[in-house]
Amino acid sequence: MASAEFYMARAIELAKNGLYTTDPNPRVGCVIVKDNQIVGEGWHQRAGEGHAEVNALHQAGEKAKGADCYVTLEPCSHYGRTPPCADALVNAGVKRVFIAMTDPNPVVSGSGIHRLREAGIEVHTKLLSSESEKLNPGFLYRMRYGRPYIRSKVAMSLDGRTAMASGESKWITGPKARLDVQKLRARSSAIMTGIGTILADNPQLNVRFSPSDDNWYPSGQKVRQPLKIVVDSEGRLPADAQILKEGKVLVITAKDIAVADTAECLVLPSSDNNIDLNALMAVLAQREINELMVEAGGVLNGALLKAGLIDELIIYMAPKIMGDMARGLFHLPDMVSMAQNLSLEIDDIRAVGKDWRITAKPIYSEES
Amino acid sequence: MASAEFYMARAIELAKNGLYTTDPNPRVGCVIVKDNQIVGEGWHQRAGEGHAEVNALHQAGEKAKGADCYVTLEPCSHYGRTPPCADALVNAGVKRVFIAMTDPNPVVSGSGIHRLREAGIEVHTKLLSSESEKLNPGFLYRMRYGRPYIRSKVAMSLDGRTAMASGESKWITGPKARLDVQKLRARSSAIMTGIGTILADNPQLNVRFSPSDDNWYPSGQKVRQPLKIVVDSEGRLPADAQILKEGKVLVITAKDIAVADTAECLVLPSSDNNIDLNALMAVLAQREINELMVEAGGVLNGALLKAGLIDELIIYMAPKIMGDMARGLFHLPDMVSMAQNLSLEIDDIRAVGKDWRITAKPIYSEES
Repeated sequence: MASAEFYMARAIELAKNGLYTTDPNPRVGCVIVKDNQIVGEGWHQRAGEGHAEVNALHQAGEKAKGADCYVTLEPCSHYGRTPPCADALVNAGVKRVFIAMTDPNPVVSGSGIHRLREAGIEVHTKLLSSESEKLNPGFLYRMRYGRPYIRSKVAMSLDGRTAMASGESKWITGPKARLDVQKLRARSSAIMTGIGTILADNPQLNVRFSPSDDNWYPSGQKVRQPLKIVVDSEGRLPADAQILKEGKVLVITAKDIAVADTAECLVLPSSDNNIDLNALMAVLAQREINELMVEAGGVLNGALLKAGLIDELIIYMAPKIMGDMARGLFHLPDMVSMAQNLSLEIDDIRAVGKDWRITAKPIYSEES
Repeated sequence: MASAEFYMARAIELAKNGLYTTDPNPRVGCVIVKDNQIVGEGWHQRAGEGHAEVNALHQAGEKAKGADCYVTLEPCSHYGRTPPCADALVNAGVKRVFIAMTDPNPVVSGSGIHRLREAGIEVHTKLLSSESEKLNPGFLYRMRYGRPYIRSKVAMSLDGRTAMASGESKWITGPKARLDVQKLRARSSAIMTGIGTILADNPQLNVRFSPSDDNWYPSGQKVRQPLKIVVDSEGRLPADAQILKEGKVLVITAKDIAVADTAECLVLPSSDNNIDLNALMAVLAQREINELMVEAGGVLNGALLKAGLIDELIIYMAPKIMGDMARGLFHLPDMVSMAQNLSLEIDDIRAVGKDWRITAKPIYSEES
């Protein structure tokens, strides 16, 4: 007889199937268990389609009556793009519901649980909640703090350089690291860069999936292209920039200026042509941006770090020396003494092909 | 019945006991085996004292007759500080000798083996030779290439900075990393720095061993202090520098100038006040410097790297951001395009306290 943790761990695995597709919804998984047997499994695939609970109930059919339900996030109680899942569980006649964590979404938060209990269902919460949290860093940040979860990716040499002085930076890392970056892009709601990177590199910043690379994108799914964002306070984005070739582009400027027809221009408060990055993040949260990926140079990354707006730093470190004429990761002109240095917590270091991936989280509390 | 590899692995373990003490001699271990039993073990402890073979034979006593001998380096055949070990093995009546690797020392190279075979002893070579090589990178480099094995140690932030613009650099890494550095110093024949580091940091560059730290230094042994070397082409070393307080100091200059009484001045060829580093290494090899540790800033490290004179790079990477105003690892003013970047092979990355130690080897062949 398997434990409740076992079934919840399975629900979390199921939720991961939606890693690249559920945006802007959270990734959710569900398992229906009757007489110690899994009789239904489901996950949420994309916005507007069935929620995890509904998919799992559909598979369980009549067996759902009197069964246990394991779900990674509190079932919704409101009519959104689909009817409330709490009602579906009540109607199916499940006996007990195990919930990894409550939904911080203000239109749900606790009311899904309340609805279930009202109907006489036994509800257990906080089962593998920290593992469930990791499924949806962006959705949870947006609901809790009104801003996206911000993940900055940098490719650097062993001596901490991201580009030569000329701006040349192709390619610091190898093909495996670059494929890894595609996966980070694919899970993001939006990808943000600065005008400096556009002018130096002219990147496309889209998700490029070739089945020959690897089989990582869900089969049968059209690749979801994240929103592309350019921080361009003075409006220097060239009309023929690669980034404008396809998909949605949002250009953040300090004053209203003409941008390409294919892009939207958003004017935000600024001082000395430095965009108010907190204002930007509030707008992005309103636009349902969960995970924001930053692929930028030292200027924008430095400004984000200074504003406490990098939650996760992913560094791909290549085994090469670029020398001290080359550019650094974070332009921080005010950081002149070691007392001002910013500490990080390193979560993980691992080989990715010939390069190494370092995952770290800045510790802002020490600074304030 | 244990394999020949088993006994040789034991001999290599024994040799490691001399890691901090044998200089300028190589680290060597020896095992005497009779009837599948180890009857004698020995290692070389310090120059002028018994070699590994003699120590092992002493322990074996009469049991050495007809026994097998496993030794990590070819037994010597010449009268140096002690009588030849090959003769000792012959006189003890051993039957077979297993040798991990021949001694590249021109006064030995092959003649020890020849001496044994002449006496009717069965000799087997090349057993765990690559593991044996690792015991003595410096001794082997000196014998083969006429220069020391050069290991540069750097402490850097996650963004590749070794000091603030002001020169401030204490302390980038934590106590465990700094203890690890003491071990690197203790195994080195000499520690080299540049005048810039002296003027900015005023380091002692000695081996500091406190038994309360850790029990890493051989008990009962007086700590061996490596030679200290300052590259100071213009003779700017202050008479009250910490480095002059104790131990031997060698000051490398471009012209004959007065240095402190406690130091020796060595004038070497130079151009534009840049010392000829290859000439320096040849002199150091003549002075029996095996492992040379470099603890320097970007200028000297850059010059060494450009000259192909860093064999091993040990980076202690601290989980902090120092910003792009801070100083880099390698001052390489001529490296302006990615085609000029230098590749490395990363041998090892591991946690040392809160910091990470990266061991890498530059690949110069790609550059030439």
